[in-house]
This record gives sequence, structure tokens and C-alpha cells, in this order.
Amino acid sequence: MPPGRRHRTDLPRRPHVVIVGAGFGGLTAAQGLKCAAVDLTVIDRRNFHLFQPLLYQVATAGLNPADIAWPVRSILRRQRNATVLLGEVTGVDKAAAAVVLGDGRVIPFDRLIIATGATHNYFGHDEWARVAPGLKRIDDATLIRRRVLAAFERAENSLTTGTEDVEIRRLMTFAIVGGGPTGVELSGAIAELAKKALAADFRNIDPRSTRIVLIEGGRSVLGHFPPSLSAFARRSLEEMGVEVRLETQVTNCDANGVTCGDERIPAANIFWAAGVAASPAARWIGAAADRAGRVLVKADFSVPGHENIFVVGDVAALEQDGRPIPGIAPAAKQAGAYVAAIIAAQAAGKPRPPPFRYRHYGNLATIGRNSAVIDFGSLRLKGRLAWWLWGVAHIFFLIGTRNRLLVAAQWFYSYLTFGRGARLMVGSDNPSIER
Amino acid sequence: MPPGRRHRTDLPRRPHVVIVGAGFGGLTAAQGLKCAAVDLTVIDRRNFHLFQPLLYQVATAGLNPADIAWPVRSILRRQRNATVLLGEVTGVDKAAAAVVLGDGRVIPFDRLIIATGATHNYFGHDEWARVAPGLKRIDDATLIRRRVLAAFERAENSLTTGTEDVEIRRLMTFAIVGGGPTGVELSGAIAELAKKALAADFRNIDPRSTRIVLIEGGRSVLGHFPPSLSAFARRSLEEMGVEVRLETQVTNCDANGVTCGDERIPAANIFWAAGVAASPAARWIGAAADRAGRVLVKADFSVPGHENIFVVGDVAALEQDGRPIPGIAPAAKQAGAYVAAIIAAQAAGKPRPPPFRYRHYGNLATIGRNSAVIDFGSLRLKGRLAWWLWGVAHIFFLIGTRNRLLVAAQWFYSYLTFGRGARLMVGSDNPSIER
Repeated sequence: MPPGRRHRTDLPRRPHVVIVGAGFGGLTAAQGLKCAAVDLTVIDRRNFHLFQPLLYQVATAGLNPADIAWPVRSILRRQRNATVLLGEVTGVDKAAAAVVLGDGRVIPFDRLIIATGATHNYFGHDEWARVAPGLKRIDDATLIRRRVLAAFERAENSLTTGTEDVEIRRLMTFAIVGGGPTGVELSGAIAELAKKALAADFRNIDPRSTRIVLIEGGRSVLGHFPPSLSAFARRSLEEMGVEVRLETQVTNCDANGVTCGDERIPAANIFWAAGVAASPAARWIGAAADRAGRVLVKADFSVPGHENIFVVGDVAALEQDGRPIPGIAPAAKQAGAYVAAIIAAQAAGKPRPPPFRYRHYGNLATIGRNSAVIDFGSLRLKGRLAWWLWGVAHIFFLIGTRNRLLVAAQWFYSYLTFGRGARLMVGSDNPSIER
Repeated sequence: MPPGRRHRTDLPRRPHVVIVGAGFGGLTAAQGLKCAAVDLTVIDRRNFHLFQPLLYQVATAGLNPADIAWPVRSILRRQRNATVLLGEVTGVDKAAAAVVLGDGRVIPFDRLIIATGATHNYFGHDEWARVAPGLKRIDDATLIRRRVLAAFERAENSLTTGTEDVEIRRLMTFAIVGGGPTGVELSGAIAELAKKALAADFRNIDPRSTRIVLIEGGRSVLGHFPPSLSAFARRSLEEMGVEVRLETQVTNCDANGVTCGDERIPAANIFWAAGVAASPAARWIGAAADRAGRVLVKADFSVPGHENIFVVGDVAALEQDGRPIPGIAPAAKQAGAYVAAIIAAQAAGKPRPPPFRYRHYGNLATIGRNSAVIDFGSLRLKGRLAWWLWGVAHIFFLIGTRNRLLVAAQWFYSYLTFGRGARLMVGSDNPSIER
């Protein structure tokens, strides 16, 4: 036995389940198989599970990356039938029933669960991604944070470089494309950052005059909420100084600004929060997909013609009662748990669980300090109470006592002081100003 | 008045003090000039002040970057005579009495305080920096954290790639060069990370068999401590499983390991914590420097022949009673405060303060959980009590209530659980394993 290598006993072979992606869907599936008579390999290209709903807080310097992310190994350390593998899946060899990694490794499976999520959609203009980053990963969040903070630094520097006022104005303009929860949260958080936390930090510029434009193609922000709550969200944003443009299509993005039809909005900072593009799982397995690239799965989340391959979460498309199951964390978790129940039942030789029923608990979105909207169907809340409930719900769902306590402490401190502590520009997006 | 630009009143011109570097020396100087009749510009290439003594905790996943760094603008927001400028100084135009920035901007000064610090010294082998990163900046810390965590991930992956045992052993070997406080703290923290926090996280490898080698050229670790404490530190490290090599010179570093004379230590992970190389301030001002590049300053920290230029902190060399003033945070802060007192007195037309006397409060170094050494001269402590004192002292000196509370909370949680929460591999040092 060489040093550093664990002793491995040779047990009778159990079914090998491979889970690709350790987001809400994949992780819940893994945890649901804890007591099942299977061996489990969880593959992710990052070493952590990310609590995406709070990513905009990292982008706007309210939280640290480690507050909303948790090592997958830690989460699964006590689950002895689970092995975690850091690696990037690039394809599935259906004939060999194996997953193929980017470094050439091949991981055979008896059952495969694909839970690789989705990202934003630039509507055929992928070149906009460079000037208008989306917000899906930790690195996106730190990139956006760097750009937000650097924008004010550049504007402040303008005094010593004799920059013209129109350029200062452009540097201090933020355009956010997409009026869903992410776009609304990001707009609100940038408004608070500029108008409260940074207000006294600069000498040459006044961050309170920051221009924030939220651009939405549809007829309302938070379009999946009831009209009264959408209208409330819009009013709240406008009271915070955000310009809300509805029924407005972006026709071009470049380093200098956004074009919407005839209107040009000069903006040095453009962030993208629109559209859905599923990860390329459909291509890996050669399955039928919808326009967003989501795999059209059967009612048990298996892929038609491949009973041993399941797709859950944002990368799957499934309708229930004629309505699509939404691409939100609770739906992904329910799907992951259901597939785990199927596989556990198969392994135990028991009958299948009853058909899947998606249970919708409600929609939550926060707009800013003391302002959120909640739609529980029969119960609709807006304003301060909704905001506190939103905060409690999000802290409750964070994994691990440590993260809950730390996030709660930071929020409480920020609430009292209007400050945002995590205002570090780290990394090297723009070496000229940061290095 | 254009939007976004603050109203500027035209006051009679006051002396303009430029401070380059917002570390301990520069920041203390800025704060010491709060009530002085001067205008102040603080220039730093990063937007934060870094509490370097705890950087190794970020490198070993105990703390978040934002816990030990604080935006310079925040610290100085209420100091109305101070302006903060984000920029990289590349030279000093002595004839014009102006600082030159990398982007071509020129900032004139009446008084200049250079506090740009020092980094490690590869003893003429700067090419080793690539394989053996030092630990001076936040980005160094996140790079080292990524490499430490990636090392275990690669070793774990070895099962599926059929790697040989000797290679697994190499992946799990850490060589730390330099037995000063940084090297000792880093060795101890990696040992704890591997042998406690990660012990249960892997399935194929056993992190407890990690090999950690601390290489020191001198006759003891923590050579500036009394022999009894140095010996205690060495014993503590060895009890934690660290191999301590004394009187050992590194003759080569490459991607596969370290060579020390006849001995070859195969190691995938080499970290550098040896030597001192001052930042290039001496070259900027054409001043005499010692071998480490530190400017040889007069007893009032002014540069010989340039009464209006001061150099403080790790980038200055000054002896007192025949002994060099050490390159530690308290010394930099005392020098910064003293220079501020001189400039404030000049601006007020008052007599100069009495000659500078460096006051040495003591040396502290931590080795691991429940183990530290403290030398207050007459009082020497080691072990558990020293460790608690070390913790209290470091939390006390952190800037800001928020950081103190958060760091205390995280340490307390880690102390109870042996866990290290901030185990994220972010950024892109090694895209093959991380993206």
C-alpha cells in the first residue's frame, strides 16, 4: 500500500451513478442517494456548490465569494458512497455508457444524472458577452464587482486627466439588460452601492449622480409576478433612481454603450441578465431540445430512448398541467430528489415512486433595502416585511451553520451602517487600473 | 457644474503631500496628517489596505480576502483633506517635484512620502517566482490557495488516470522556502489543512499523509526569536508532521521540485517566504540603497539631499543603536506617524518633534492551533496562552468593527470544528483543472 493512497476493499459491485454538476439539482440528487445501494460519482468543474440566488450580492460587494459557496467535498464528506471528482465533462459516450472528461478520462456509469444548468442568452450575439458580462458564476460576480468599483475610480481619476464631462457621465452609467430577478436585484444593489455606501468616498465625483438604466424587452419587470407586484417593483426601482425602460429591445452592445433601436445610451458598464441558454447536455446525448437548448425529458426526467440517463434542473424542459416547470432552485431540487428516489428504488428492487408533481412554493425577489416582493399565490407581500422574509428565507437555505451566521452578521452590519464591506478589486480584468 | 462632479471651492493653496502606498506606513502617515493644514493625495495601485500579517490565513482557506483588506477610500472617507487615487507610480521627477504614474499622469508634490514596501527575494533567481510564488499580495494568497487545493484534487484524480505512486507522493508534497514567520505560519497552516480540515474529504488519497518540508538557510526557524522559542517552534512544527530542514540552501527550483545541494525533494507545490527585496523606490529617486534595495534614509526618514522626500516602512533602511529597525508593521506605523508629525509641524510653523525613537513592543508568531511564540523581551510565552494572545492582538489591530467581528466569528467556528470554510478555488491559475 503506497503512502497517501487509501485502502480499498473489494465489495460486490453496486450500480454506479454519475452526477454531472453540483448545483441545486445535482447535489440534491446526490444527497437523496445517501442510503441507496449505489456508488456515486459527482463531477463538477469547480470545487464548490454555489448558492446562485445571492450571487448579485457578491457582485455588488455585499458578500464574500466564500459566503455563498461551499466545497462539494465538505458537503458530501460524510456520505461514504459518494466520490467527488473535479473535472470538465465534454461529452457522453452513450454506446459505452460513459462520461468523457476534457482531459481524456472516461467515467463509466450505470445511471447518469445531468444537472449542468443554464446561462444567459445573448440572442445570437455572443460577441456581446465580452462587453456585457452575465452573472452566473463566482468569477462573473468578482468581474462585475471589479468593473463597478473601477468605474467610479476611473471617473474620480478624471480630474487629473482632464476628461470631458460627457465621458465622466458615461463612466458613471450602468446599463443592465433584463428585468427578471437578477436584473432587478443587480440594478437595485448598484443604486444602493452608489447612492449610499460610496456616497462619501470620493472627492471629485459624486457617486449619487450615477445613472442606472434597466432595460427590459417585456411589458413589466419581474414578469412572472402578478401585475401589482411588478408595478411595485418598478416604482421602487424608480424611487431608488433607476431608469426603467420597458418594451425596449437591445439592438447593439459595444464598449461605449448600448443601442436600443433609435436610442443610444452611452454606458461604460453593461451587465447582462436576459434570456436562458442551457448547457450543451442535449448535444452530448443527442437528445431533442427546446429553443433554449433544454433537453425535452419524459415525466420522470429520463431522456426518451435512454432510461438510464436523467436530466434535471435548468438544463431540462418539462411541462406540467400545460405550464413549463420554472428554472428556479426549488424546482431543480425537487427534480433531483425525485430522480434519486427512482434510482434508489431500482437499486433496492422496490416499486417506482408515484409520478412527479412539481410543487410551486412561490416567487421571491428583492429590490433593495426594505424592499422586496413575495408571491405565495394566495399571499402577496411587498415592501419591508417581504424584504425581511426574503432575507430569512435565503439565510435559511444557505448550506452550513458557518455561512448562515456569517451572512447574517454581514447583512445586519450593512443594514445598520449602509456600508458594503467586501469592496475589493481582486484579480486582473483590467491590469491598467488595478495592478 | 456638470452632473457627477463635485463643487470645488478655491481656497488659498496649502502644501500638497503625496503618499505612495497605503500599507501600514503610508496609511498611518495619512491618518497622522488628518488635522494638519495640508492637502493629501494617497496613491496606491490597489483599492485596499491589506493586513499582511494574516495573509497566510487567506492562502490556507481560513479567511476571506475581504476579511483582511479594507478599501482605502473607506478608511479615509471622513478625512476631508485626503484624496485617494488608484494608480501605479512608475517614477519620481525630482526636478519638477512630481510623481509620475504609469498612465502618464503627473502628480506634483510639496512633500512626498514613499511607503511602497518590500517583497521576497529569490536571490538572483527571479525565474523561480513562477514555480514558487511568494505571499505578499491578496492575489498571491488566492493563487497559493488554488494551488494547495488543486494539489489534493489532482492526487485524488490520480485513481482514474492510473498515476504512479511516486507522482501522487510528489503532488502531495509541499516545500516552503524560508523559516521566518511567514514560512512557519504557512507550513503549520498547510499541515492543519491537510491533516485535519481535509482529512475526511477524499476517497482515494489520505490527505494526512501529505509531506510538508520547511527549508531554512539559517540555524533555526524564527531566527529573530530567542533560541528557546525558536526551538519550541521547530518542535511544534515537527509534532504537526512538518519536516524542518535547517542550514539548507535551495540551489534550484522547478515545476517538479526543489534541489538543495545534493538532495532532490520532488514537490509539486513550492512556496517562497525567504529574503527581502524592497520596491524600486531607490531607483525612482536615485538614492543610495542597501543590498536589499532599501533606501538609506536619515534619522528623520528623509532622503539625503532631498528634505521634502521621506521613505518609511519596509522600503527604508535605518539603524538605531547599531541595530536595524525591523521590517514589521509596528515599525512602519511608527515611522509613518513620525513623518506625519514633522510635516504637520512644518505646516503649522511649529518646531520639529524630538528625534525618532523606535519602540520595539515584541515579536509574535503563530505555528498552529494552540501554538504560538511571543517575545516581549522580559516576558516570553509559548504554546496555548501565546496563541490566544496572538489571536486577540491580531483581531485588535484589524481595521473596522466589521472585520474584527467576522474574523473572530470565523476563527471561533474553525476552532470548534477544525474546519476551514473559505476553500474556494476561484480565478484561473490552472484552467485545465478549474474551468
